[in-house]
Amino acid sequence: MKLLVIHGVNLNLTGRREPGVYGTKTLDEINVELSEFCARAGHTAEFFQSNFEGEICTVIQNAEGVYDGIVLNAGAFTHYSYAIRDAIAAVSVPVAEVHLSNVHAREEFRRKSVLTEVCRGEVLGFGINSYKLALESFWL
Amino acid sequence: MKLLVIHGVNLNLTGRREPGVYGTKTLDEINVELSEFCARAGHTAEFFQSNFEGEICTVIQNAEGVYDGIVLNAGAFTHYSYAIRDAIAAVSVPVAEVHLSNVHAREEFRRKSVLTEVCRGEVLGFGINSYKLALESFWL
Amino acid sequence: MKLLVIHGVNLNLTGRREPGVYGTKTLDEINVELSEFCARAGHTAEFFQSNFEGEICTVIQNAEGVYDGIVLNAGAFTHYSYAIRDAIAAVSVPVAEVHLSNVHAREEFRRKSVLTEVCRGEVLGFGINSYKLALESFWL
Amino acid sequence: MKLLVIHGVNLNLTGRREPGVYGTKTLDEINVELSEFCARAGHTAEFFQSNFEGEICTVIQNAEGVYDGIVLNAGAFTHYSYAIRDAIAAVSVPVAEVHLSNVHAREEFRRKSVLTEVCRGEVLGFGINSYKLALESFWL
Amino acid sequence: MKLLVIHGVNLNLTGRREPGVYGTKTLDEINVELSEFCARAGHTAEFFQSNFEGEICTVIQNAEGVYDGIVLNAGAFTHYSYAIRDAIAAVSVPVAEVHLSNVHAREEFRRKSVLTEVCRGEVLGFGINSYKLALESFWL
Amino acid sequence: MKLLVIHGVNLNLTGRREPGVYGTKTLDEINVELSEFCARAGHTAEFFQSNFEGEICTVIQNAEGVYDGIVLNAGAFTHYSYAIRDAIAAVSVPVAEVHLSNVHAREEFRRKSVLTEVCRGEVLGFGINSYKLALESFWL
Amino acid sequence: MKLLVIHGVNLNLTGRREPGVYGTKTLDEINVELSEFCARAGHTAEFFQSNFEGEICTVIQNAEGVYDGIVLNAGAFTHYSYAIRDAIAAVSVPVAEVHLSNVHAREEFRRKSVLTEVCRGEVLGFGINSYKLALESFWL
Amino acid sequence: MKLLVIHGVNLNLTGRREPGVYGTKTLDEINVELSEFCARAGHTAEFFQSNFEGEICTVIQNAEGVYDGIVLNAGAFTHYSYAIRDAIAAVSVPVAEVHLSNVHAREEFRRKSVLTEVCRGEVLGFGINSYKLALESFWL
Amino acid sequence: MKLLVIHGVNLNLTGRREPGVYGTKTLDEINVELSEFCARAGHTAEFFQSNFEGEICTVIQNAEGVYDGIVLNAGAFTHYSYAIRDAIAAVSVPVAEVHLSNVHAREEFRRKSVLTEVCRGEVLGFGINSYKLALESFWL
Amino acid sequence: MKLLVIHGVNLNLTGRREPGVYGTKTLDEINVELSEFCARAGHTAEFFQSNFEGEICTVIQNAEGVYDGIVLNAGAFTHYSYAIRDAIAAVSVPVAEVHLSNVHAREEFRRKSVLTEVCRGEVLGFGINSYKLALESFWL
Amino acid sequence: MKLLVIHGVNLNLTGRREPGVYGTKTLDEINVELSEFCARAGHTAEFFQSNFEGEICTVIQNAEGVYDGIVLNAGAFTHYSYAIRDAIAAVSVPVAEVHLSNVHAREEFRRKSVLTEVCRGEVLGFGINSYKLALESFWL
Amino acid sequence: MKLLVIHGVNLNLTGRREPGVYGTKTLDEINVELSEFCARAGHTAEFFQSNFEGEICTVIQNAEGVYDGIVLNAGAFTHYSYAIRDAIAAVSVPVAEVHLSNVHAREEFRRKSVLTEVCRGEVLGFGINSYKLALESFWL
Repeated sequence: MKLLVIHGVNLNLTGRREPGVYGTKTLDEINVELSEFCARAGHTAEFFQSNFEGEICTVIQNAEGVYDGIVLNAGAFTHYSYAIRDAIAAVSVPVAEVHLSNVHAREEFRRKSVLTEVCRGEVLGFGINSYKLALESFWL
Repeated sequence: MKLLVIHGVNLNLTGRREPGVYGTKTLDEINVELSEFCARAGHTAEFFQSNFEGEICTVIQNAEGVYDGIVLNAGAFTHYSYAIRDAIAAVSVPVAEVHLSNVHAREEFRRKSVLTEVCRGEVLGFGINSYKLALESFWL
Repeated sequence: MKLLVIHGVNLNLTGRREPGVYGTKTLDEINVELSEFCARAGHTAEFFQSNFEGEICTVIQNAEGVYDGIVLNAGAFTHYSYAIRDAIAAVSVPVAEVHLSNVHAREEFRRKSVLTEVCRGEVLGFGINSYKLALESFWL
Repeated sequence: MKLLVIHGVNLNLTGRREPGVYGTKTLDEINVELSEFCARAGHTAEFFQSNFEGEICTVIQNAEGVYDGIVLNAGAFTHYSYAIRDAIAAVSVPVAEVHLSNVHAREEFRRKSVLTEVCRGEVLGFGINSYKLALESFWL
Repeated sequence: MKLLVIHGVNLNLTGRREPGVYGTKTLDEINVELSEFCARAGHTAEFFQSNFEGEICTVIQNAEGVYDGIVLNAGAFTHYSYAIRDAIAAVSVPVAEVHLSNVHAREEFRRKSVLTEVCRGEVLGFGINSYKLALESFWL
Repeated sequence: MKLLVIHGVNLNLTGRREPGVYGTKTLDEINVELSEFCARAGHTAEFFQSNFEGEICTVIQNAEGVYDGIVLNAGAFTHYSYAIRDAIAAVSVPVAEVHLSNVHAREEFRRKSVLTEVCRGEVLGFGINSYKLALESFWL
Repeated sequence: MKLLVIHGVNLNLTGRREPGVYGTKTLDEINVELSEFCARAGHTAEFFQSNFEGEICTVIQNAEGVYDGIVLNAGAFTHYSYAIRDAIAAVSVPVAEVHLSNVHAREEFRRKSVLTEVCRGEVLGFGINSYKLALESFWL
Repeated sequence: MKLLVIHGVNLNLTGRREPGVYGTKTLDEINVELSEFCARAGHTAEFFQSNFEGEICTVIQNAEGVYDGIVLNAGAFTHYSYAIRDAIAAVSVPVAEVHLSNVHAREEFRRKSVLTEVCRGEVLGFGINSYKLALESFWL
Repeated sequence: MKLLVIHGVNLNLTGRREPGVYGTKTLDEINVELSEFCARAGHTAEFFQSNFEGEICTVIQNAEGVYDGIVLNAGAFTHYSYAIRDAIAAVSVPVAEVHLSNVHAREEFRRKSVLTEVCRGEVLGFGINSYKLALESFWL
Repeated sequence: MKLLVIHGVNLNLTGRREPGVYGTKTLDEINVELSEFCARAGHTAEFFQSNFEGEICTVIQNAEGVYDGIVLNAGAFTHYSYAIRDAIAAVSVPVAEVHLSNVHAREEFRRKSVLTEVCRGEVLGFGINSYKLALESFWL
Repeated sequence: MKLLVIHGVNLNLTGRREPGVYGTKTLDEINVELSEFCARAGHTAEFFQSNFEGEICTVIQNAEGVYDGIVLNAGAFTHYSYAIRDAIAAVSVPVAEVHLSNVHAREEFRRKSVLTEVCRGEVLGFGINSYKLALESFWL
Repeated sequence: MKLLVIHGVNLNLTGRREPGVYGTKTLDEINVELSEFCARAGHTAEFFQSNFEGEICTVIQNAEGVYDGIVLNAGAFTHYSYAIRDAIAAVSVPVAEVHLSNVHAREEFRRKSVLTEVCRGEVLGFGINSYKLALESFWL
C-alpha cells in the first residue's frame, strides 16, 4: 500500500512547540519513524507539510488514484476549514484524521472538527502513536 | 463589458467531484460555455480559479478599474472567509455571488454565507445557469 | 413555456413602499415588463398577487399540471410560512425564489428563508432583474 | 499487559443491530478476535458487557491495580453519562475510548462525548479495528 | 396479537404520586384495565415495570420475535436515555410512545423526548386512555 | 357526541402530496372513513378544511357550545400559529392534536408544535389511525 | 383627527375569552367606549377587527392618506407576523402598538413583538385604558 | 392621587444628551410640565432622580403607603437591575414603566427589560408624553 | 428524628478519588462521623450508597413514611437524572441536596443540578460538613 | 471567631416583603437570633445591610484581617454583580453564600449566581436556618 | 491637555489584590507614576476612584467641557454597566478604555465589555503601561 | 530592540479602502511613519504584509530568536484564524494585537478575536496610533 501523511499548519514546529503537549521529536524524526513503521509492515508512506490551506486542498485532490489512503493531521485548520473538508469529500481516497493530543481535553474550540464527518475514522490523543494507528487502520 | 469569473477552492475539480451535485462538465468546458454566452451578448469574460484564499483576495483587489463586474463562486470559502468579504467591500466593482447547487438544501453549514451581505446579489441552484444568470445581471 | 409569477404580501405596494429599496415601478408596470421579457423569448407569463398566505398556498397547489414553472417572491412570508413551504414541496412544478433587494444586507430576520430549501434555486438583489433572471432560468 | 475491554449498553446486540452500521459479527466473535489479536502481541484481554450504567462504573472502579489499560465503548452512555466519566477520572488506569462507527457522520447527538475529556485518547470509525488499534495503543 | 406494555422509572408509584397529574389508579389496576381492554379486542398484553434503564433496554432487546408491538411509557428516561433509544432502534418490533399527562404543558425539560424519533408514533395527554389508544394502534 | 375534525393548510392535497409520507387516500375518502368510524361508535363527526389560518381560528371560536370535541391537524400552522393557539385556549371545547406522520422523525422544524401546550392531548405517527384514535379519545 | 383602531386575531372574543386576563367587556362595548373617549377630545375613531393577517395588511396599506394614526392590537400576530410589520413600515401613518394585558408577565413567547420596532410607541398592561392612552398619544 | 415619578441613571442629562433621541427639554422642565399635567387632572406628582441603583431601590421601598402609584423610567438600569425589580415586587404600590424613546428600535440590549414583568404596564416611544400617559393610567 | 443519607454514584470511592477535591476519609469513616453527629443531637441516621440510578429512585420511593428527611449527594447523577428528580417529587419526605465540593468552581457541567428545584434546600462546598449542616437543617 | 453577616439589596424589607417566600421576621429580629446563635457557640457576629453594591464591595474589602469569615446574602446582586465577585476574590476572608429561599425553584434568572464560584460554599432554601448553617460552617 | 483617569470598582485594592494579575504597586503609586508620565509630555492628569457605579456616571457627566479626554478602567463594571455606557455616550469627551490584564485570557465573562462600543479605543494587557499608552493616545 | 510589524489580509489596500474607517495614508506611508517613530526611540522596526494566512504563520514562526516583539494587525484573519493563533502560541516572541478602527463599534463578527487570548495585549481604535502605542508597549 502507498500511503500519504499530511501535516497541516504549524506542525513543522513539532518538537519545538509546546513540548509538553506535542512531544520533543521533530517532524523529520517523526516522519522517519512512521516511514519505518510502514516499511516493517510492507507498506510505503510519503509525507507532506504545509501552512497553506490551499496547498493541502490541492495535495488531497491530487492523491486521487495515486495513494491508497491519507493520514491527515490538519492542525488548527481542523476547526474551520470547510475547504479541506470539501477536498476530502471530493476524492475517493479514504482519509484517517489524526491528532497528537487529546483535543477534547484542551480549549473548547479544539473540540469541534469540521473534517471528521467526511473522514473514514479518527485517532487522537496517543502522541506519535496516533499516526501509527491511523496508518495501520488501512492494512489491518 | 469586461467581466471576471472567479472560481474558488475545489472548483477545479468540477466535473469530477460529486457529479450528482455539481454536474459532469469540467471547469474548462464551463468556462468556454460562459465565454460564448457573454460573447453572444457582446461582452467578454475572463476566468480565474484558485484554492488559495489569499490569491482570491488579491485578484478581487486588482479588479478595481479593470473589470465592470465580478461573478464569484467562492466554494467552501463562502462560509467563513471574512478575508474575501473584506476584499469585496474594499473595491467598487460590483460582485454577484453564485452557487451551482441549492446550498440551502444541503448541509447546515452551507446555509450561511459571510459574503452575500457585501455582494450586489446572489444566484444559486441552477447549475451552470447560475453563472450565466449572474453574468447577465450586469448587462440586463 | 407557461410560467406563473406570484407576488406575496405587501408587494402590491411596490413603487410606493420604500422606493430606495424596492424601486419606483408599480407592480403593474413590473408585470408588463416581465410579460414582454417572456414574450420576446417565446414564453408566456401569468401573474398573481395576494396578501393572504392561504391564497398563495392554493394557487401553488393549483399550478400542478398547468404551469411549467413558478417564480415566487413571497415577501415577508418568506421568513416564517411553513405553509407555503409545504405547498411548494407538495407540487412537482419547479419554483424559483426571488427577492428584489439583497435580503442578506438588511435586517437580521430577512436572512432566513424557510422556502429556499424546497425551491430549485434563488435569485436575489438585482431589483426587477431578479424576476427576469429567475424566469429565464426555466428556459436557459 | 493485562487489558480490559468494556462494551456498554446495547452492544450485546452487535451483529444483529443495524449491520450496515455495526457489521455482522456477534460480540462473542469480536471478543475472540480481539483476544487473539492481543495474544499474538503477547498480551491478554478480558471482556465485560453491561446495559447498566452502574455496573460499568463499578467495573471501572475495580480495575484499579488490576488492569494496565481499559478499552471502552460505552455505547449510548457516551453521550450523557457523567457517572461513567467520574468513574474514569477516579481511577489511574488509562482508558482508550472506542466507537465502531464514525459517530460524527451520524445523528447530531452522537457528536458529543462526555467521556473523551477524561480518556487518554479515542479511536473511531474503523469497525472492529477501532478496538484493535485502541488495544495496541497501550503497548505500541 | 401479543403486545408488551413497558412502564419506566417511578411509574410503580402511579396512584400515589401527584394524583392531580397521574390519576388515582395504581399500576396494578391500570394493568388489569389494559389487559381487559386488549382481551375484549382479542389480543393479549403483558406488563413490565422497572426503575432501571438497563433492564428496560434488555427487555426491549428480548422482545424481538416475541411481541407484535410495544407500548412504552419511559417516564423520566424519555428525556435523556439514548440507551433506550438505541434499544428501540435495534429491534424490529414497532414501539408506540405513551404519556399519561400532556408533557408539553408541564416543565420545559419534559417537552423533549429523545425516543419519539425512533418510535412509530406517540399518544399523550389522555391519562390511562393514552395506553389504550396506543395499544389499539397496533390492531386498528 | 358531536365532534369536529379540522384539517389545516395543504391537507386538501392528501393522497396527492408525498404519498410515501401521507398515504394515498384523498381527504374525502379519509373523511368518509372517519365518519363511519364515529358512526359505528354512535357518534357524529363533521369536517372542515382550510388553507387560511384566520378561517381556522374562526371555526374554532364558533365551536364553543356546538361540538363536544375537536380533532385538529393544523398542518404546517402547527409550527408557528400562535393565533390558532390562542383560539384553542379561548374556547372550552377540548382539542386533540393529530398528525398523520411521526413529525419528530422528519425535519427539525416539525418537532416544535406551538399548539400542544393548550390541547388536551396529541396523537401522531399512525397515519389515518391517528385521527381515529384522537376521535376515540373523546368517548373512551 | 381621524384615527383607526385595528383589533387582530381572536380579539372578537374579548369579554368571553379568559376574562381574568382580558376583562369582561365585549369588543363592541370597548369600541363604543373608545369612540366616546375620542369624541370627548374632539376626534373620531373607526374600528376594524379581523382574524386574517392578510386583511390586516390590506387595511394598514389603505390607511395611507386616510387616517392620522393607527392603534393596533395585533393579538397573537404580534409575535410572528413580519407581513404586518412590513405593512406598517410601508405606510407613513404612525402606528401605536397596544396590548390589553402585561404581555411580559405571561408566556415567554408573548415577550417578543416583531412589530414594535416599526411602530412609534407601545402601551401595554392597562386593560382597555391601553387603547385610550394609545389614542391619546396622537393628540397629546 | 399622589404619584411619584422616578428618573433613573443619566436622565439628569435629558435635554443635553442625544437630543435627537431624548428631546431638548431639561429634566426640570419636564418635571414642571408633568406636574402641571397632573394638577390639571386634580392629582399631585413628586419627582426623584438618581444615578444610584441603591437609592432608587430605597425610594421605591419607602413609597409603600405614601404614594398611589409610581412612574418609573429606570434608564439603563432597566436592562439589568434585578435589585430594582425586587424592590418593585416587594411593595404594593403599582408601577408603570416608561421610556422616552422606542427602545425596541435601538440597540439590541435595550429590547430587554428585567422590570416589566413586575410592573403593571409600560408606555414607550412617545417622548415626554410617555410619562403623561403613564401618569394618566393611574386615574383613567 | 430518623434521617436517611444517600450517597450516589462513585461516592463509594471517597477517600481514594481525587483526595484534593473530596478529602481522604473513606465513606465508612464519613458515615460513622455523621452517625455520631446525629446521635449527639439525639437523632439517628441510616446510610445507603449505590452506583445505580434505579436503586436510588427505589430507595427514595420507599422512604415515604419511614424517614423524616433525606440528605442526598447524588454524585454525577445530579446533573442529568430526571428519574431521581421525579422520585424526589413523588414523595413527601423533604430532601436536602449536598455536595462535598463547590461544584460551581469546577467544570461547567457541574453547575447545573436537575434536582435542586424539587429539594427543600442545598448545602455545598464545605466538605464533610456539608452533610452535617444538611442533617442539622432538619432539626434546627 | 469574629464573623460578619452581610445582607444585600432589599433585605432590609425582610418580614414585610413576600412573607410566603421570606418569612415574617424582620431583619433586626433575624440579626438578634443569629447573634445569639453565635454567642451560644462562643463566637461573635456583626451585621451589615446595604442597598448599595459599592458599599458591599467596600465592606468586603475592609473585612480583610478583621473577620474570620463572611456570611453573604447578596439579594438580587447575586445574579449580576461581578463587582461583588471581584471583591470576594480580592480578600482572603472566606465567604459562605446564603439564600433564604430555594432560588432554584423560583424565576429562571435566580438560578444563576455569579458569586458562588469564588465563595467557599453555599447554603440555600432553609429560611433563617440558611444563615445559621452558614455561620456554623466556620467553626464546625 | 487636561486628562481624567477613572479607576472603577475594587481598583482601590490594586497592589494588594491578586498581585500575580494586577502587579504590586498601589493605586496611589500608580497615580503618581501616571501623573509624572503626563507631566513629562506637558499634560496634566487628575484621578478618581469609586466603587459606586452611580458616582462614576456622575463624574463622567461632569467631565463635559472640563477634560480633554478620559482614561477609564471600570473594573468589573466593564461587563454589565449599561449605565456607565450611557454616561459615556452622553458626553462628547472621548474615552479610552483600559485594562491592566489581558481580559481575554481570563474568565469567559471578562471577554465581554459593554463599554468599548462607545469608547474611542481600548488598550489592554500591558499592566500599568496600559494606562500610559491610553493617556498618550490623546496627544500622539 | 528589533520589532516586526505584520499587516494581514487586505491591509495592502489601506489608504484606498473605506478611508472613513481606515484613513487615507497608504501602507507604505504608514510603515515609514512607524519606522521613524521607532527610530526616534532608538529601536528598529521591520514590516511584512500578506494576504496569505499560511505566510503569516510562517513569518511568525521564523520570528523566534530574531525579533524582540511583534505588532500584529491580522485584518479579517483576526476573527477565525486558529492557525495564526497557534503560530503565536508556538513562539516565545511577545505579540501585541492591533486594530486601526474600534472593531467593537462595527459589524458583530468583528467583535470576536481568536487571537487576543494568546497575545500579550491589544490596542484598538486609535488609527495609526494604535500601531505606535503597540510598538511603544515593548520598550515602555
